[in-house]
Order: sequence, then C-alpha cells, then structure tokens
Amino acid sequence: MNQQRPDIAVIGGGQLARMMQQAAIGLGVRLRLLAEGEDVSAAQVIPDHIVGDHTDLDDLRAAVRDARVVTFDHEHVPPPHLEALQAEGHACRPGPHALIYAQDKALMRERLSELDIPVPAHRVVTSADELDDFVESVGGYPVVVKTTRGGYDGKGVWVVNHAGSAAEAFATGAPLLAEELVFFTRELSALVVRRPSGDIAEWPIVESRQKDGICKEVVAPAPDLSDAVAASARDIAKRIAEGLDVVGVLAVELFETADGRVLVNELAMRPHNTGHWTIDGAFTSQFENHLRAVLDLPLGPVAPREAWSVMVNILGGSVEDLEAQRAEVLERDPDIRIHLYGKSVKPGRKVGHVTAVGDFLPDVIVRARRAADLFEEGKSDE
Amino acid sequence: MNQQRPDIAVIGGGQLARMMQQAAIGLGVRLRLLAEGEDVSAAQVIPDHIVGDHTDLDDLRAAVRDARVVTFDHEHVPPPHLEALQAEGHACRPGPHALIYAQDKALMRERLSELDIPVPAHRVVTSADELDDFVESVGGYPVVVKTTRGGYDGKGVWVVNHAGSAAEAFATGAPLLAEELVFFTRELSALVVRRPSGDIAEWPIVESRQKDGICKEVVAPAPDLSDAVAASARDIAKRIAEGLDVVGVLAVELFETADGRVLVNELAMRPHNTGHWTIDGAFTSQFENHLRAVLDLPLGPVAPREAWSVMVNILGGSVEDLEAQRAEVLERDPDIRIHLYGKSVKPGRKVGHVTAVGDFLPDVIVRARRAADLFEEGKSDE
Repeated sequence: MNQQRPDIAVIGGGQLARMMQQAAIGLGVRLRLLAEGEDVSAAQVIPDHIVGDHTDLDDLRAAVRDARVVTFDHEHVPPPHLEALQAEGHACRPGPHALIYAQDKALMRERLSELDIPVPAHRVVTSADELDDFVESVGGYPVVVKTTRGGYDGKGVWVVNHAGSAAEAFATGAPLLAEELVFFTRELSALVVRRPSGDIAEWPIVESRQKDGICKEVVAPAPDLSDAVAASARDIAKRIAEGLDVVGVLAVELFETADGRVLVNELAMRPHNTGHWTIDGAFTSQFENHLRAVLDLPLGPVAPREAWSVMVNILGGSVEDLEAQRAEVLERDPDIRIHLYGKSVKPGRKVGHVTAVGDFLPDVIVRARRAADLFEEGKSDE
Repeated sequence: MNQQRPDIAVIGGGQLARMMQQAAIGLGVRLRLLAEGEDVSAAQVIPDHIVGDHTDLDDLRAAVRDARVVTFDHEHVPPPHLEALQAEGHACRPGPHALIYAQDKALMRERLSELDIPVPAHRVVTSADELDDFVESVGGYPVVVKTTRGGYDGKGVWVVNHAGSAAEAFATGAPLLAEELVFFTRELSALVVRRPSGDIAEWPIVESRQKDGICKEVVAPAPDLSDAVAASARDIAKRIAEGLDVVGVLAVELFETADGRVLVNELAMRPHNTGHWTIDGAFTSQFENHLRAVLDLPLGPVAPREAWSVMVNILGGSVEDLEAQRAEVLERDPDIRIHLYGKSVKPGRKVGHVTAVGDFLPDVIVRARRAADLFEEGKSDE
C-alpha cells in the first residue's frame, strides 16, 4: 500500500474504475479505490484500495479521507451518504445535487421537463388504478414501467402490454414510473464531459444497439445521422450537463424517432459503456477526460481518430477462460483492440469489450462482432 | 494483494514496468512486480508487487515463482541469476542467452561483428598501453571508452581526447571497451518486437536526439530518411533480433553517417525510451507488443497513426511538483499527451515524457518541447 495522498477516491471497483486507472497512470494521478472485494476488476490494478461497502458511510469515509476529490464507478451510493460526505468537506464530482438525477428516474424526468428537454410521457404510479389512468392518457397499451431507483442493464424495467401484466413490477414494492413506449428507430448516445468551471467537450454522437436490454454494440459516429438530429442531441446533452451542474462525464441515452425527434431515455454521470470506443477511437478517452474534469484540468480533444470505431461488448457465454481465448481472437485479427475486465464469466455478464477501427464500416462491424463472438462462444458466424 | 496466478513477472519497478501495466490492464494480463521499494514508479500501479533486490536470487525466485513468464524493466539482473531461473524452469523472455548481449558491450560488439553487422571499430582494453595501441589503429584521438557492463544514459562512457585522459575510466577498475568516435550526422533507433515463434514487427525508424548523453527527444518517423538507410536500419534490427534470439521488444540505437552508413551503437532488449511515442502515435504501443510477444500472442499493427509524433523527455529541473504543473501545461496545450512516472524530481532524472502528434512537424516539435520545458523549468522559450 503506498503512503502518498491520493488525488482521487473512486467509489466502486468495476471495469469503469479499472479503465480510469489506465488513464491515471499516464497523467500521474493517484487513485484510491473503495472496492467490493479484494480481487474485483479495479482492485486488481489499483494498489491503494480499501475493501468496503459503498452503502456504509464509515467505509466511504475511510476511502475518501485524504483524497482531493471523490468520483464514482456507479450510481449506487445512497444520496444521504453523498450529502454527508459533501457536508464533511469532501468534493464529490459529480456532486449529490447532480447525481440524484442519475439515481432517481422520476426526479430526472421531472427536472428535465422543467428544463424543457424532450422526454417520453411519464407519471409516477403507486397502484394499478393510477397505471390505468396513465395508459389511457397516452392512448393505450403498451407502456413501460420502471423502478425509479436501482435499475440498470434492463433490470427493473417491464414492458406492460395489458392490464394486470404490471403485477410483477408492483410486487417489488419499489416506487414505479410509468412511461409511454417510444417507437424509436434507433438509440443514440450523447457523451459530454464538463469541468467545475463550466467548460464542456462533446464526443461525436454514437449509435447504441441493445440486446435484451443491455448495450451490445456501439457505432461511432452514428451512421447516417442528420445534422439536425446531431445538433439536437448535442444541445440536449449540453443543456443537461449545465442545467444539472454535472462534473465529469455525462452520457445521455436517447431515442431517435422516425419523425426526426430525439427523446431522453437514461442519464449516467460517469464514463459509460457507449463511450468505451473513445479509448481506441478518439484523441482523448472518456476515462482520461473524466479524470481531467474532476481534477478541474483542461479537457483533451474529443475528435475521432478514425473514420469508424465499433465497440462490441463481450457478454459471458460458453467460453470460460477469456485469457486463453485471447490468442485465438488475435490470431484471427491482430488489429482488434481487446479490453478484458478481469471478471469471472457468468451468463450475460459484461466481462470485456473489443473495438475495431477503420475506414469501411461494414468491415469494421464484422471484425468487432467476430472478435466478441469468439470471446463469448469460441466461434463466429461473421 | 490478489491471489490469482500472475501471467508475467516483471523484474524492476521503473517507468517501463509502469507503462507495461497500462497495456496489461487492457489485455487482462496480470503482472507481478519485483520492485526496488514500496512506492517506486511501477509499484504505485501494480498491486501484486514484492519489494526486493534484483541482484538477490531468492528475491527473484519469490517474484517469478508462479508466473507463466518473466520479463524485465532493465538489464541489471546478474547473468548467473538469469541462468539459474532459466534452469529452474522459468521462461525468461528475453532469455539469458540473448540478454547477455544487452548487458555486456564487449560481447555485443563481438557477436554483432560475427553476424556481419556494422559496428564501430572497437577493442577491449585493460591498460593505457592497450588503449594507445587501439588509438593508433583507428588513426588517433578522440576515441570513446566505455565500461562493458552497467553503463546507461551517458554514465560509464568517456570521450578520450588525449593520452592520459582515460584515467577516470581506468580508475573504475571495470572492464573497458575502447571504440572509434563515430562522426555521425544523427542518431536513429530501430524498434522491433519478436515472438518466440519468430514473428517480427518493426515500427518506423525514428530519430533520437541526445542531450548530455541522455535521450531527450524522438521524432517519428525520422525526417528525410532515405529509403536505403531506412531499409538498412530495419535489416540490421531484424538480423539482430533473429541472430540473438531476442523475445520481446529490441531497440537498436544507430549512428547515421554522412556517407549514408548506419552503425550499431547500443542495444536494449525491453521497451525503450525511443519507443515511447508509440503509446500515442502508433496503432500498437511498444508496451502492448512487448507483453504480447513475451506471452507468444500475435503482434499488433505497428503503423503510425499520425504523420508525425514527437516525444520529449521531462528531465528533473527546477519544478518540483509535476502534478501541480500539469494544469499549466494543459492550459497551454490541451492536446499534449502527458506521461508522468510518479517519481520525485532530481536534477536530470527522467521523471516523465510528453508526446505531441500532428501533420506539420515544426509545430509538433515546438509543442512537445514547450510542454517539457514547462514541466522542467515552469517556463518555455518555445
């Protein structure tokens, strides 16, 4: 354990903290980690780590004690704890006043509506009767029901097709938000980064392709994106970053509709899966710019370095030993960029990602999918 | 400390091991470090480290114990210890039979001569009389005298201008090698990487500019390099890698002469200062390809990503707090790529490097020099 004062305390030891460390090494930034266990993804690569629970205020205090600033691998720190840390003089970036909108979907919808940012029609519902009223207000089924807090990667989200089929959602006992089911043509993501001083940088808008509610594939920049939609998506992300006083990376997941509108789906106030392509495909990665932003350093250039970058997640499949599989993946395509998270393989778990870059998009997509397939199933149809 | 078996044991905790870790994180490769102290450069970023002495065989054994392969941050492990590790079944990459030529300049000169690779005229000298004979054989002073082992960054090297001025060198008591002083027009470096199977990849030939015997600046690719000289430099590096059975990165420092010849100056069998530009300027960095090579994985593409990359070392100067200086450097040039090594500042010590990339070389050079100046002295004339 090194004895130097850390620059940044990172709460949560997942792959986002792990990838922050790659950027921190170059910048000479010292990270301290609050890790869920001794050998979690980021604890494998950050010597100065404390094992503890991010829902325990004393563990949080131990981790942030002498750090200059505090940032996050996830949104799961309880808001009262964030407020307590802030009140005790710790600079949380993003701060609790911003993070709450990434933690609570009902508050987020309400606040974005106030900011006049387009969101799906929505209402907090506490009973089947209230849900019926909402369904009627949007012209009938299907609608979407979500827990206001704690859902991610498709968990805590139900598509409700008829009266009574929301029973599972109500059975959770959690506060629920009902939303219109947006008939989108595709999902976009707007990734921006903001300093405490207000400077903002915006990576190109990307297209995100989901599988079973989990981001599976990202194409950067989004193909065939009209200038108007791109400008609208960028404008929305900037206004949210400013309106909510976000510091660090903000990812705004968006629905693009057939009539050229964009609506906000979700927010994340940390490096995000739809920004992993920036490690290999942009002049400054989201991880480096996140660190630069939370330290209030000038932001790095966000231009793409290649015509196309395609990132595909590696989800846990039948291949158990990803490290052993590396050789075959690289044998097939030595140019593919591999990112393994040091996680054990479980079905559907995000255990890594691959990125391909190049000039001809169909080829870049095939290469990235093939590499991910090989890591998941040991074979590929691509 | 994590409990997993490491993939690679790295001997030596300097900046090369530190930068290997950035690549290792992506590949999902677990490193174990033998570090000189608890908070040396690489120990700050590699949790699985052992503090010990690379000249102590038991410390080496403890570090390499359960690692799949062993590699190095420097050339200072005593050859008998390397032989012992190898005999005990540890795969040293490069192996002692190759490393010896990076450790002993007399053996290196002899072996390269056998391989018919151009080197300066040279002779091992044990007395002033033998030095006189050598001086006569090369047509008079000046000549260069070097310790055969242990020198680096200008240490252990003397330019001898007249009889008697080699006294300091002889006073060391170390075995000495006398060499003709080559009147070179510039220094080049040929960086290649080789797998155990024999596959080789070659980055572009770069120009290296020294200051007081220390590499200060690298321009990639070497400007105005004739095709013939480039081919000759590449050919030399490949023949050395093959002839000496090098595994991993090999850097061949070369003199280019006015009449278009290249002569080998020094060898390094590890990532090398003249290859740091590859982190930001090539599709695969020397650090990633070194790891891929020692694990016998397919090598990544070595093409440059930009027209020009210029790396300038940050040598310890009057600025003591490099981390505090980061803000000013980035304020002046947010596009500069910063690499700090987590080392305390001492006069002339390599404490980091910066890399600029771009299309117009004079501008790229100015930007890189200015950033390094700001880190060294807090101001720049550029």
